[in-house]
Amino acid sequence: MNKIKKTTESNQPPVSELRQDIITGDWVVIATGRSKRPEDYLEENTDTLETKECPFCEPGIQHQKPDTLIYYKKDEEWSLKVFPNKYPAFSRGKRIKHHENGIYFSMDGAGYHELIVTRDHNRGIPFLMKEEVAEVLDSFRTRYLDLMNRKSVNYIMFIENHGNKSGASLVHPHWQMFAIPVISPGVKLELEGSRLYKRNNKSCAFCDMIKQELANEKRIVAQNDSFIAFTPFASRSAFEVWILPKKHQAYFERITEQDEFEVAEILKIVLEKYLFNLKDIPYNMYLHTSPCDGKDYNFYHWHIELLPKTATWAGFELGTGIEISTIEPEKAAAFLRKKIN
Amino acid sequence: MNKIKKTTESNQPPVSELRQDIITGDWVVIATGRSKRPEDYLEENTDTLETKECPFCEPGIQHQKPDTLIYYKKDEEWSLKVFPNKYPAFSRGKRIKHHENGIYFSMDGAGYHELIVTRDHNRGIPFLMKEEVAEVLDSFRTRYLDLMNRKSVNYIMFIENHGNKSGASLVHPHWQMFAIPVISPGVKLELEGSRLYKRNNKSCAFCDMIKQELANEKRIVAQNDSFIAFTPFASRSAFEVWILPKKHQAYFERITEQDEFEVAEILKIVLEKYLFNLKDIPYNMYLHTSPCDGKDYNFYHWHIELLPKTATWAGFELGTGIEISTIEPEKAAAFLRKKIN
Repeated sequence: MNKIKKTTESNQPPVSELRQDIITGDWVVIATGRSKRPEDYLEENTDTLETKECPFCEPGIQHQKPDTLIYYKKDEEWSLKVFPNKYPAFSRGKRIKHHENGIYFSMDGAGYHELIVTRDHNRGIPFLMKEEVAEVLDSFRTRYLDLMNRKSVNYIMFIENHGNKSGASLVHPHWQMFAIPVISPGVKLELEGSRLYKRNNKSCAFCDMIKQELANEKRIVAQNDSFIAFTPFASRSAFEVWILPKKHQAYFERITEQDEFEVAEILKIVLEKYLFNLKDIPYNMYLHTSPCDGKDYNFYHWHIELLPKTATWAGFELGTGIEISTIEPEKAAAFLRKKIN
Repeated sequence: MNKIKKTTESNQPPVSELRQDIITGDWVVIATGRSKRPEDYLEENTDTLETKECPFCEPGIQHQKPDTLIYYKKDEEWSLKVFPNKYPAFSRGKRIKHHENGIYFSMDGAGYHELIVTRDHNRGIPFLMKEEVAEVLDSFRTRYLDLMNRKSVNYIMFIENHGNKSGASLVHPHWQMFAIPVISPGVKLELEGSRLYKRNNKSCAFCDMIKQELANEKRIVAQNDSFIAFTPFASRSAFEVWILPKKHQAYFERITEQDEFEVAEILKIVLEKYLFNLKDIPYNMYLHTSPCDGKDYNFYHWHIELLPKTATWAGFELGTGIEISTIEPEKAAAFLRKKIN
């Protein structure tokens, strides 16, 4: 890998507000900076992906300001770039401003919202070489290390939305990084659960899951020396897949260069299966790791979750928080394991 | 109201399995009874609402078996019926069977899944008379009272999906009731939050919210003597609305007949606003009340939540559990308050 780092820092006005639900403690982002007029909701059409100029292909909009944070190059051409998002959900701010509003509580949406973009418009992970996928992981680690100690950053998450129905608005392969001041409720639940499991069982919940999955095999989708991919026992979506390092590791940012290649290999296999066995199913992917708020999370185990979009969250799911999956994870894994023709 | 009750009980084979996530404690439903072959996911099209025969209009499929649980009538015609769902996510069972699977845990998807249907194919709540909407609420209460003490039932939820993008598969107005053995994670968070709030503040969190909303007015959408509708301070969706009884009441099933009319009036106003001011925006609605597991939940406050479908949950929302709303709740309330032309 041929990696070049730059640094820029700017202070923009806040583009969003984080508001806390006083009942659940959950946070929501009110993205005032992206705010629409109420009338704009009436004509919304989220059903078409870009057909015009791609902002990630030169000379697209993301190339017009020289604010690339890091890039990787190969044969004198860039292969991967990281930019600040031109339409951020969080704005770069060094201090977090808190606001009280009677019994309610909010804070400025301070943080970082960046884009990780690979060069070729039509080559997603299944068509990249393992080395190129490893660059994606390496850019995650590099950005993580750069931001993890900033004052306004307590959690860093990397995500990918693929396909129209998954909420992606662009076809060009890209990932997003959110570095935010709050620990998200979804992650908090996992942290509390794994802390409790460790206390009760003297072992890591994720390590115990891996042990059981390796022993019983029927939910495994792929594995190599360092990583395993399986459909979780309590899958929330049909064909959901988790990818975990086999050895206990709470902190993604400590990944070795060798393991970047190993996880790249597994990620490539899983996404090839989604592409070929499931006809390019739309999916959401995110990386869950320990918070970077200075506390010890050694009971946790970083991992990647992949959630195909096979259904709409409706009243039952929204009201209960319980998802309905219409295929057994064991059958889903068998189907994904099928050889690609 | 002219209400007729019937009773039927049958034991079908389990159509689903409840599996618990060992990390978060969350439950998922693996709906094996509705199971598709893996190949079925490849051609899925969730984008069209029924164009053929409506199963709720006579002689539709839901009328072919005489298994109506209650119905209301007016002028010798039925006005509302409650049926068991022909494609239930939970199957009627008197005992809950638990299964252990190494470190994992699951139980049979025992419970009740019923449909509440009003007669007219094209008259949703905005076009019903207040008395007819009150029948919907009364049918909820009646079914609740019938099922709340069953062995396999610890939580009962009523939901409505309206519009294609909200996950509704039929246009005929209908509501769904789920009576399930587990307390859902979404409700659990609210219960724990309001229990803690009560302990710290010696008052109900929801009552305090109502007090502040009444004082500051800017998020109120509608109110009458007994109920208030407002856009919550930490709205998760654009134009989200909550409807609450103004007086403290933890248990929906204790609603008076008078209050059924009062909540019907407010619900009608809010849904008229969704229909006319927001051009029939798709939405999900659910009723949150205390569990019926025999414990005391007097710190809780039942309410209805309405969530318009204005965006797709993508990687950020799925990964963090934090939702991004692109309009301030104060602006949303002002827009909803606008007079209907």
